[in-house]
Amino acid sequence: MTREELIRHIRNKKSYLMVGLDTDIEKIPNHLLALTDPVFEFNKQIIDATEKYCVGYKINTAFYESMGVQGWNSLEKTVRYIPESHFTIADAKRGDIGNTSSHYAKAFFDHFGFDAITVNPYMGSDSVQPFLEYKNKWTIVLGLTSNKGSHDFEQLKTGEKFLYEKVIETVSGWGSRENLMFVVGATKAIDLASIRKIIPDHFLLVPGVGAQGGSLEEVSQKGFNKDCGLLVNVSRAIIYASDKHDFADAAANVAAAYQMEMKIYF
Amino acid sequence: MTREELIRHIRNKKSYLMVGLDTDIEKIPNHLLALTDPVFEFNKQIIDATEKYCVGYKINTAFYESMGVQGWNSLEKTVRYIPESHFTIADAKRGDIGNTSSHYAKAFFDHFGFDAITVNPYMGSDSVQPFLEYKNKWTIVLGLTSNKGSHDFEQLKTGEKFLYEKVIETVSGWGSRENLMFVVGATKAIDLASIRKIIPDHFLLVPGVGAQGGSLEEVSQKGFNKDCGLLVNVSRAIIYASDKHDFADAAANVAAAYQMEMKIYF
Repeated sequence: MTREELIRHIRNKKSYLMVGLDTDIEKIPNHLLALTDPVFEFNKQIIDATEKYCVGYKINTAFYESMGVQGWNSLEKTVRYIPESHFTIADAKRGDIGNTSSHYAKAFFDHFGFDAITVNPYMGSDSVQPFLEYKNKWTIVLGLTSNKGSHDFEQLKTGEKFLYEKVIETVSGWGSRENLMFVVGATKAIDLASIRKIIPDHFLLVPGVGAQGGSLEEVSQKGFNKDCGLLVNVSRAIIYASDKHDFADAAANVAAAYQMEMKIYF
Repeated sequence: MTREELIRHIRNKKSYLMVGLDTDIEKIPNHLLALTDPVFEFNKQIIDATEKYCVGYKINTAFYESMGVQGWNSLEKTVRYIPESHFTIADAKRGDIGNTSSHYAKAFFDHFGFDAITVNPYMGSDSVQPFLEYKNKWTIVLGLTSNKGSHDFEQLKTGEKFLYEKVIETVSGWGSRENLMFVVGATKAIDLASIRKIIPDHFLLVPGVGAQGGSLEEVSQKGFNKDCGLLVNVSRAIIYASDKHDFADAAANVAAAYQMEMKIYF
């Protein structure tokens, strides 16, 4: 998906909501467990119920890998089920030497057909470059994450700057606003304004709203740019809104509420 | 596998060689391609041919993921085929917020039964901790990698130290020499001596010997500690020693040569 298509999609819907499919077999409603592929069935119903409120889906690969081959199969069926109109992110946090990163890019872009993948910048340029070589695909590099561990290294000072600022500044030179985004946690809304000074034009993927406690209002105030420039992801607060038969309706209601709030900030 | 078992295994064999199963369907001998699972068949023959020269196998997950469900299936069969006596590493370079890292740990330790997994430290303590909670399992954290991109961030100065030194120092406080190792690239042998001052007792996983150009002699001179303390991985130079019917014999010959050289350094 190109930047223009993504922006058009966001404007038409007045939504910059991504729904996070962090689907945990131990948390989905009991009545689904008797089915052949409960994880896919859960995702399918969540997608059907929420697609009109969101612009895309973020699939957290860990939850599928923990189920081995069966999980990988559920992942493949899920990504193929998501409507063409919707932006798809493999939240995989990959990154390795060039030859290996090429294989990860092949896995998520060619094989599964995701629009985007999250990438860890620690190993530097040749670990990120193979992802950037794909046309109309997106590399979403970790900047400042929403967890408490972000203090350990991301927020260390290197010279006058924090490491995450140095990462964002350096990596932004490897791609363009057409193929590169950054992850900035919603619980760090206070830093969004300073990040916007480094990369005024890039899209930011913002996790941490909902279960992790970030504020949509604050993120929107500090993170918006002229093209919106935000993809706000909500996972648990939407997909586990109910653990009963009404889970899909409950998810739709929560997603609709987020989208209603987003309309205000447009 | 416990530290004592690993050390005993290394001493008995006079080998600290890991064979890297970076198995690329496009590089394996043509005559295997007609089989149902060429990747597994290739790995099986490589394992049979090399197991007496090495102490373990490192499986690079990217090469399997790039083939989707089928690749994940080959990975599962491969790890189950490796003899119990051998140390197994999932070279997966995972790491995410705590709840997600728990699922990666479950995938590689519980589901596949690997002894160890490589982990990226960028996101800090709560991204690493879930892996360390497993008894008799190993977390192998990226320190200084063997690629040129290691200059971009790993070798930035933070205060008086390089970032990779700060990472190794900080992370070493989160686990012990019984459950924690570090990745240090063989092409950085010059830095091994300074890393040994920070962590004299920990095992180091050293990639980069062979195709990437690192020297086994230099790595051994600078990296050895009283318990050996090294696992040297060789992938392409062993598994692609021949692309003909004799590939397994050719792999055995190269592995044997590495092990012969290792005997000298004991």
